Amino acid sequence: MGILIKDAMAVLPEYENGKYTGSKVEKTTIGILGKNIYFIGDNVPGDFVIDEEIDGSDSLVIPGLINAHTHSYMSLFRNAADDLSFMDWLFGRIDPLEGKLTPEDAYWGAKLAIIEMMKSGTTCFNDMQMHIHQTTKAVNETGMRAFIGRGLVGGTNEDGSVNDLGVLKLNEALEEMEDASLTDRLSFFFGPHAPYTCDPGYLKHVASVAKEKGMGIHIHLSESVTECENMAKEQGCTPIEYADRAGCFEIPCIAAHCVQATDSDIELLAKKGVSVVSNPASNMKLGNGFAPIQKMLDAGINVCIGTDGAGSNNSLNLFHEMSLMALIHKGTAKTPQCISAKECFAMATINGAKALGMEDKLGTIEVGKRADLAMLDLKSPSLMPNNNLMAALSYSANGSEVRTVIIDGTVTMKDRMILTFDEAEVYEKAAEIVKRIGV
Amino acid sequence: MGILIKDAMAVLPEYENGKYTGSKVEKTTIGILGKNIYFIGDNVPGDFVIDEEIDGSDSLVIPGLINAHTHSYMSLFRNAADDLSFMDWLFGRIDPLEGKLTPEDAYWGAKLAIIEMMKSGTTCFNDMQMHIHQTTKAVNETGMRAFIGRGLVGGTNEDGSVNDLGVLKLNEALEEMEDASLTDRLSFFFGPHAPYTCDPGYLKHVASVAKEKGMGIHIHLSESVTECENMAKEQGCTPIEYADRAGCFEIPCIAAHCVQATDSDIELLAKKGVSVVSNPASNMKLGNGFAPIQKMLDAGINVCIGTDGAGSNNSLNLFHEMSLMALIHKGTAKTPQCISAKECFAMATINGAKALGMEDKLGTIEVGKRADLAMLDLKSPSLMPNNNLMAALSYSANGSEVRTVIIDGTVTMKDRMILTFDEAEVYEKAAEIVKRIGV
Repeated sequence: MGILIKDAMAVLPEYENGKYTGSKVEKTTIGILGKNIYFIGDNVPGDFVIDEEIDGSDSLVIPGLINAHTHSYMSLFRNAADDLSFMDWLFGRIDPLEGKLTPEDAYWGAKLAIIEMMKSGTTCFNDMQMHIHQTTKAVNETGMRAFIGRGLVGGTNEDGSVNDLGVLKLNEALEEMEDASLTDRLSFFFGPHAPYTCDPGYLKHVASVAKEKGMGIHIHLSESVTECENMAKEQGCTPIEYADRAGCFEIPCIAAHCVQATDSDIELLAKKGVSVVSNPASNMKLGNGFAPIQKMLDAGINVCIGTDGAGSNNSLNLFHEMSLMALIHKGTAKTPQCISAKECFAMATINGAKALGMEDKLGTIEVGKRADLAMLDLKSPSLMPNNNLMAALSYSANGSEVRTVIIDGTVTMKDRMILTFDEAEVYEKAAEIVKRIGV
Repeated sequence: MGILIKDAMAVLPEYENGKYTGSKVEKTTIGILGKNIYFIGDNVPGDFVIDEEIDGSDSLVIPGLINAHTHSYMSLFRNAADDLSFMDWLFGRIDPLEGKLTPEDAYWGAKLAIIEMMKSGTTCFNDMQMHIHQTTKAVNETGMRAFIGRGLVGGTNEDGSVNDLGVLKLNEALEEMEDASLTDRLSFFFGPHAPYTCDPGYLKHVASVAKEKGMGIHIHLSESVTECENMAKEQGCTPIEYADRAGCFEIPCIAAHCVQATDSDIELLAKKGVSVVSNPASNMKLGNGFAPIQKMLDAGINVCIGTDGAGSNNSLNLFHEMSLMALIHKGTAKTPQCISAKECFAMATINGAKALGMEDKLGTIEVGKRADLAMLDLKSPSLMPNNNLMAALSYSANGSEVRTVIIDGTVTMKDRMILTFDEAEVYEKAAEIVKRIGV
């Protein structure tokens, strides 16, 4: 299948001495063959057969955004729990709701999340979920790209062996990985939930299993002040040090939040090459504050952006997160000269790809990379006049400018109509579920 | 003209002992006759003639949002000036661009702003502009509702009389007010720009003229730290005290920003009944920080929301501002228990109406008030599932859910098509202008 996107403005990567330095906007033509970008430029290669031509004039083509931390099933809990302290939110409200979810509910929740993400230009997400096979199924059916981790909680028995709960969850995770046909549209991370739900022995065990399987770790770290205070009291360290001691940082590790990271935590994260996912909306909404992103960037940490789940955001729109990332740190630092629009865009694209170990295939528009693209309507009031489009992506776009989405070389949305699955059915099922479980 | 909105979910005000306490969502039917809401409820009065029926199922009807501080012509400067200090932004970048604008440019800029506002549910805006007759013309032609103030800058001569610049600007403001046919869809404020551009004598003069004409003042106060430092040095007071001394608070006054308001400033603003317009995106983007909103609310100040101009935001989408308002103060206060979704919605509606002296006609959906309404598509992924819609308006909506807009009883947008003027023409003109002036 050859797809030609003709005469579009496109966000292309810039390199200096082989090092990615940011993005620029250029008018060009993009050819897609199979899953990949086949050429970029106005000279269409003679051997390229055009099966579908998309008029790119009045469009801005961007690499699909990468949501580096979410819980897709939680879309069912959108706007269900506001104005609660973090621990009340988690244990008082969200946990009981989760207890009522059937596996099939989680499947519909994931599909609901995928609609929202696709419609706002996200083509890949990194999920921590609780019902195996469900996000997997949703991803397979919708054409979305995802990395999935079954959320793991557990501890150790007196003899040092992993307790029943820990074994059960880990076995589920392994079962899901074995059952799935791995493609680069669907892959897995091990998802130990957090230091406060995985004891040292269990976390160490999970890290060793992940290492053995050649896979990475996706974990929540240093999200709330309470978490850090408790950890200091109980273990005499920060949650980030705790994860390091358990061996989580010896393998590819994606650390969500790190809002409370100390200077020495930042040094440690940088030294160990841990990718940090910042979730600005969720961190503010739950009263956890502002992550020290500028310090992390200065230390050379690979910072990505996530939405977290809709239960604590309450949307899965990465354009909203990019705007928050571009704005809030200027507010806290009281200077407009920090965290630029270009940096925010990198966080939501190539940095996410790096965290997932996919920078050779995702995150920028380049020949040979997967064709994961979103096309924005340049005739949108928020992008008018069409100046400085890199700034527009972080500051003035709201996500609704996305009209067409291509994932893995397949057009999954055109003119805001999702082509790969039935949107209305998902809304209907979601409404039934929230009615049943009493959200 | 009778319009019936049938079987919609609607955001209706709640009262306790005659005092507005917030909003609730109810299924109902709304009848509009002429400019006003004629009835609310499922029993259509026998004398009501239906000229147009709008199916409200799958819609959430809200009172049109009120943008209490903007500079509409600055839509032409969207994404034109990023990452600059406040004074460099204003005097180094924006002022020179403004110098190149013709009056007609400002007219097209205002129309561009109106498109963006209408498409994101704003039905009324409070503008500070620089070319008289232009916003007025745009408002008249588009069916938008606005309050307009010519930005005034000036000083006094040695003999105490107003200097030439000050006279010129004030005369322009007076000329515009006299020429316009005042309706309650178009009215005026006096717009002395700021304490650092109006000397004490001039500001006092403007306040006295406004008082004489029975009109209010719209002014920027305590926006940046530099402004406050300079004021302390030069006048030994805060910008808010400076405005008070000039008499600005003896008449209805809308104070934009107040980011740096001190505790005694807050006391003063509350005592004098000054309405404060917070502009969260702009305040962060220019590095001015976070206004002490919770303290202002605790003091009983009428706090409204504005977008500021697109040159410092860079959008005019009040849904974005509501979400920022609901999130950032939870981040700075490190608690999820401050500034609720309902409070944010009140700021963007009834509080704006109060600031403009229009609470009897605008800001809530009530019989006898003007029919200024926006209808949101409940089948939007960001609103799905349709839980707790008051939270949804601040936390998960992005503005693109707005499909239909009614202003002053006239349908100005239907299914996202603007009916009252030519959207494409505006985009074309805006592109020409920015090319010419070199944005």
